[in-house]
Amino acid sequence: MTNPYSSVFTAVRNQTPLVHHITNYVTVNDCANITLCCGGAPVMAHSTEEVEEMVQYAGALVLNIGTLDQNQTDAMLLVGRAAAARDIPIILDPVGAGATSLRTNTARRLITELPISVLKGNAGEIGVLAGVEAQVRGVDSAGITGDAISITREYAAQTKMTIVMSGPTDIVSDGKQTFLVENGDPLMGRVSGTGCMAASVIGVCAAVSHDRAVSSAAALAAFGIAGERAAKTACGPGSFKVALFDELAALKPEDLITDAKIRSV
Amino acid sequence: MTNPYSSVFTAVRNQTPLVHHITNYVTVNDCANITLCCGGAPVMAHSTEEVEEMVQYAGALVLNIGTLDQNQTDAMLLVGRAAAARDIPIILDPVGAGATSLRTNTARRLITELPISVLKGNAGEIGVLAGVEAQVRGVDSAGITGDAISITREYAAQTKMTIVMSGPTDIVSDGKQTFLVENGDPLMGRVSGTGCMAASVIGVCAAVSHDRAVSSAAALAAFGIAGERAAKTACGPGSFKVALFDELAALKPEDLITDAKIRSV
Amino acid sequence: MTNPYSSVFTAVRNQTPLVHHITNYVTVNDCANITLCCGGAPVMAHSTEEVEEMVQYAGALVLNIGTLDQNQTDAMLLVGRAAAARDIPIILDPVGAGATSLRTNTARRLITELPISVLKGNAGEIGVLAGVEAQVRGVDSAGITGDAISITREYAAQTKMTIVMSGPTDIVSDGKQTFLVENGDPLMGRVSGTGCMAASVIGVCAAVSHDRAVSSAAALAAFGIAGERAAKTACGPGSFKVALFDELAALKPEDLITDAKIRSV
Repeated sequence: MTNPYSSVFTAVRNQTPLVHHITNYVTVNDCANITLCCGGAPVMAHSTEEVEEMVQYAGALVLNIGTLDQNQTDAMLLVGRAAAARDIPIILDPVGAGATSLRTNTARRLITELPISVLKGNAGEIGVLAGVEAQVRGVDSAGITGDAISITREYAAQTKMTIVMSGPTDIVSDGKQTFLVENGDPLMGRVSGTGCMAASVIGVCAAVSHDRAVSSAAALAAFGIAGERAAKTACGPGSFKVALFDELAALKPEDLITDAKIRSV
Repeated sequence: MTNPYSSVFTAVRNQTPLVHHITNYVTVNDCANITLCCGGAPVMAHSTEEVEEMVQYAGALVLNIGTLDQNQTDAMLLVGRAAAARDIPIILDPVGAGATSLRTNTARRLITELPISVLKGNAGEIGVLAGVEAQVRGVDSAGITGDAISITREYAAQTKMTIVMSGPTDIVSDGKQTFLVENGDPLMGRVSGTGCMAASVIGVCAAVSHDRAVSSAAALAAFGIAGERAAKTACGPGSFKVALFDELAALKPEDLITDAKIRSV
Repeated sequence: MTNPYSSVFTAVRNQTPLVHHITNYVTVNDCANITLCCGGAPVMAHSTEEVEEMVQYAGALVLNIGTLDQNQTDAMLLVGRAAAARDIPIILDPVGAGATSLRTNTARRLITELPISVLKGNAGEIGVLAGVEAQVRGVDSAGITGDAISITREYAAQTKMTIVMSGPTDIVSDGKQTFLVENGDPLMGRVSGTGCMAASVIGVCAAVSHDRAVSSAAALAAFGIAGERAAKTACGPGSFKVALFDELAALKPEDLITDAKIRSV
């Protein structure tokens, strides 16, 4: 038996897609390891001298502005254009958009200049970029005004991006299909980098599927199921993070049939 | 029942202070996670284009020169001035001061140009900056000549900084009050980044208290108690580090009443 | 009882050699911790303003091009010349050589301009640098044409470097002696950074021995034994990595007499 979500993971495990990251130096190791656990192969390269060459091997490109500076922006634009030319899907995690103008403006510029496939952020980040009232404190969402589902769906419809608004319930929409993903555990919010890792898992899954709403929902459900299972044995955030890697690596495609909490709305 | 140390942690847990770090890329993930475990919220941002804007949300600023270069120095001076203008406490961890002139001179410059609230280093680093005979090998203390308590107290009195000289017994002084903190475990010296993490915990605590000697002693005791508890279950440095995060997250303010080994001298 | 491999580890534990790294920001924390677990002391410093001064304390220098850019190349050449002037052994891990011309050319330049003691890479990386037919995908080997042992031996004989070609069976040759090391576990390939960590362990061991083929074989056997032991208790890649640190820290020199699988060929 299969369903569209389990099929994504079957494909991931068969294809071991390479995922090129330009990401922050805080959680980069976690992104590399979660990519491996998920079934992909990570590569990190940021120099403008090599990013265009490196990305040609990749099944997906993940851009994360968590520790942004000008060199990174230059590299992201360059690698993004090379990815676009090869139809490699680009995932953008606009970490801290709304907290500083550098981050807000850079996220907007990346969205304008590159054909982003999936934009994943917390409610504050997505809200700021969608142009609704929203607040970001550091890299955490401090709230959004309005109906989160409608904001996500409409922003997706306007921009042709698949939008993922992460939270206790993740919202995924490509403007036509909208999914709520309710897997996960509160401990995920107590470990640095789970948001960044989710973007990596979304990247791995985007590499094997053209339906980016379905593949993103599958990614979030898989990551969330791993989180639920990890929480059962964890003694706190440290052991939870260790178990999160173990559980995602142990996840079977069919677990997405039995345990995924994905609802179409 | 409360005491001044437990009160610091009660305040931390109530306020979730944001702690802006400019720190080294070796242990930055550990600093982010220990900040979360402690009860704060970490943000890392180093671009001169955004640090002044980002720090305005912060309750404390942690500067760590563990992988220093010119860009970082520029960003540290800029963000430090912005923090100072808002009375945000600045914690400086002068990693490797004494090992190279770049580190010694940069640490001195930061101390001269910024109103550092807490300077935390090992005996060698503090000794070099205090102007006594001291040696640093790489990023480890290789000894200090003279009485460590007097050196710490006098350096604090001269400079108006709270000085933390870390070691098997941590010494904390603001020139008037001097505390010895005897919590901790030798395994803390066998994991990279425990010194950096201690600075983050000091930062979280400085954000909620104007008595920086008391809040630093509370931070070191809490971190040390977590280390003592982690050592009980650890099989080595790897599992010790995991348990250290778990135990700090599980620490209750009242544990600082029962288990803190803080002596005023 | 001792053998040449156990003697290397006895020396490491007695001398605590400082190992200066210029390495990638993905796995740098793992390199620092494995250096400590092994019995060395890590220091990371990359600024051209300080690397020459910092390396003077070091017993070995590890260069890793996993997240290369121009600043790093400049620093590597500068620190490499300073190390050479002091007869400090240099270990080069040419991560991703063959994947982009930047990496291939920089690895070649470092080999030409610096007296590299040990060159450690996967089959694809070593093959590309040795000038045989080989492929690299991202940072993973995608195969080599020809006999791996002969390629390793001949490349070593031509260049006077000790060559380590890592894989399920590691091959170590200085052109005269050639060793196969068969310790390890498949889980090592499912954690990001085990290759980088192996280079750190090789660096620690190179610091205490002039026979770099023997010390590299000892390093790989020790790291592999730790991997075998870690695999016994691991539930997946996350817990495996934690146990790998624990087991290397617990390794006794005499374990290299009983458990090392090193064959001379």
